Amino acid sequence: MTQPKIATRLFVEEDLSAGRSLGLDHARAHFLRSVLRLARGAQLALFNGRDGEWLARVEGLGKGWASLEIVEQRREQRAEPDVWLVFAPIKRARLDFMVEKAVELGASRLLPVFTQHTDVSRVNTERLAANAREAAEQCERLSVPEVTESLGLSALLADWPRERRILLCAESGAARPIGEALAALEASAGQPWAVLTGPEGGFHASELDALLKLPFVTPVGLGPRVLRADTAALAALTCWQAWLGDWGERPPFRTTEGG
Amino acid sequence: MTQPKIATRLFVEEDLSAGRSLGLDHARAHFLRSVLRLARGAQLALFNGRDGEWLARVEGLGKGWASLEIVEQRREQRAEPDVWLVFAPIKRARLDFMVEKAVELGASRLLPVFTQHTDVSRVNTERLAANAREAAEQCERLSVPEVTESLGLSALLADWPRERRILLCAESGAARPIGEALAALEASAGQPWAVLTGPEGGFHASELDALLKLPFVTPVGLGPRVLRADTAALAALTCWQAWLGDWGERPPFRTTEGG
Repeated sequence: MTQPKIATRLFVEEDLSAGRSLGLDHARAHFLRSVLRLARGAQLALFNGRDGEWLARVEGLGKGWASLEIVEQRREQRAEPDVWLVFAPIKRARLDFMVEKAVELGASRLLPVFTQHTDVSRVNTERLAANAREAAEQCERLSVPEVTESLGLSALLADWPRERRILLCAESGAARPIGEALAALEASAGQPWAVLTGPEGGFHASELDALLKLPFVTPVGLGPRVLRADTAALAALTCWQAWLGDWGERPPFRTTEGG
Repeated sequence: MTQPKIATRLFVEEDLSAGRSLGLDHARAHFLRSVLRLARGAQLALFNGRDGEWLARVEGLGKGWASLEIVEQRREQRAEPDVWLVFAPIKRARLDFMVEKAVELGASRLLPVFTQHTDVSRVNTERLAANAREAAEQCERLSVPEVTESLGLSALLADWPRERRILLCAESGAARPIGEALAALEASAGQPWAVLTGPEGGFHASELDALLKLPFVTPVGLGPRVLRADTAALAALTCWQAWLGDWGERPPFRTTEGG
C-alpha cells in the first residue's frame, strides 16, 4: 500500500486515537491557515511521542482556531536510540543550527551545561525546545527530545545516572580515535549513552581531570583538525549513530513530500 | 619544546621560507591593524597549502598596509585526505555553515552541482571560497579547499575522473547503511573519494538511476530519520573520515589559543 504524501507534520501533546477531535492553539492554528493556507479537509500527520504517527484532517479552521479529526494510524511508536547531547552553550545562531541537526541525528535529550570556559551567560531553553520541536516535525521523528534547564558541570556530574555512559569529545592524551573507541564498545549499543562537548575554549584542565576519573566516561578524538564546538557535537552524534545507534536500519519512512 | 601559542593564522599565496618578507593586501592589513589590533612585533602563523606552517612577525603596519617577516617553520606540510564534497547548493545561511563545517571535516575540494530539484538559482563561489579560507585558518588546516564553479550534474559526471569513488547520500533501495558500506571499502582508504549530496527535494529518479549505474558510485543510507541536505553532507564526511580518512590519528596540533 502506498500511503498518501502529506505535507505537514505536527507534534501535539494530546493522546492520539481514531475518531478523536482536537483543537490547536492560536499560534499553530494561525500557522495552518495563514502560512500553510490549509483549508477544511486538508490532511496532516500528528505525533505525540507515545502513540506513533496519525493521519488527521482539518475539520474546520478560522481566525486563531483550528480543529482536527484524527483518522487512522500511519506508523506505530517505536523505540529510538537513547543518546543525550550534553553541550556547553554557544552563540545563538550556531546553537540554533546545532539543535536542529542534533534532533535530525537522533539525540533523545538536549542538556545545556555551563563549564569554566563557556562564554555565553544564559541559554534560552524555551527557544531551544521550540527549535527541537520544529526539527522533529521536519525529520519524521516520532518524538521530540526534551530540553532540560541548564546547570553547571559539577552539578550535572554529581547527579549523573551512572549506567549512562558518556562519550567525551576531548583533545586529551587519553582520547582514542572515535571509531576505534566505538568499535570497542559495540556491546553497549542498547544501553543509555550521552555525548558531551565543551565550549569553544575547550574544557578547563581540572574539568577534564574530573571527567577522566569517572568510570563511565570514554574520551574520544575527532581527528587532526580543530573542530568548532558545534561541529564536534554533530560529528560525535553521527559516529555514535553509525556505530552504536540505529543507522544500521534501512533508509527513512517519508511522510512529507519531496524526494 | 613547547611552541608559543599564536592567536592568528593566515592563509597566503606567497612561498614561505625563513627570512622572507611579505606584504599583505589592503583588506587583511586592515584586519590585522583595526580588528585584531596587532602591533609591530606581534606573532602570527602563515600557511599556503605547500610549505607547511610558519611563524611570522609583524615588521610594520599602517593604514592599509602591513609587512611580515617570516621567522621559522612550525609544521611541515603533510598529505591530507583527498575527499571532495559535491553538493547541490542550498540557501545561503545553511550553505555558509555547511562550507565552514565541511572545511573542518577535511573536505579537499568543494563542488556545487545543480540538479533537477535544486531550488537555488545561483551560487556565489567567491563567497564560498572566502568562507572556506576563513574556516581553514581557524581549524589549523595546512590547506584551503578549492571551490570550483558550479555545473550541472550530467556535465559533472561526463567529465568525472573514474578513479575517484563517490559516496552517494541517497534514500534508494540500493543504499546500504553507511557504516556497513564504508567498512567493506576499507581497502580504498588511500584513494581519491567524493561525497555527493542532493538538494532538499532529493535527486530526481532519473538522476538516481544514472548515478547508480556508474561503477564508482556507492549509495549509502544515513539512518531512519530524514536529514536535511546540509546535515547529510556533514554526516557523510564525518563517517568517511572516521572509517577511511585521517581520524585514526591523534588529536590535533593547536597553533591558536584556547583549550
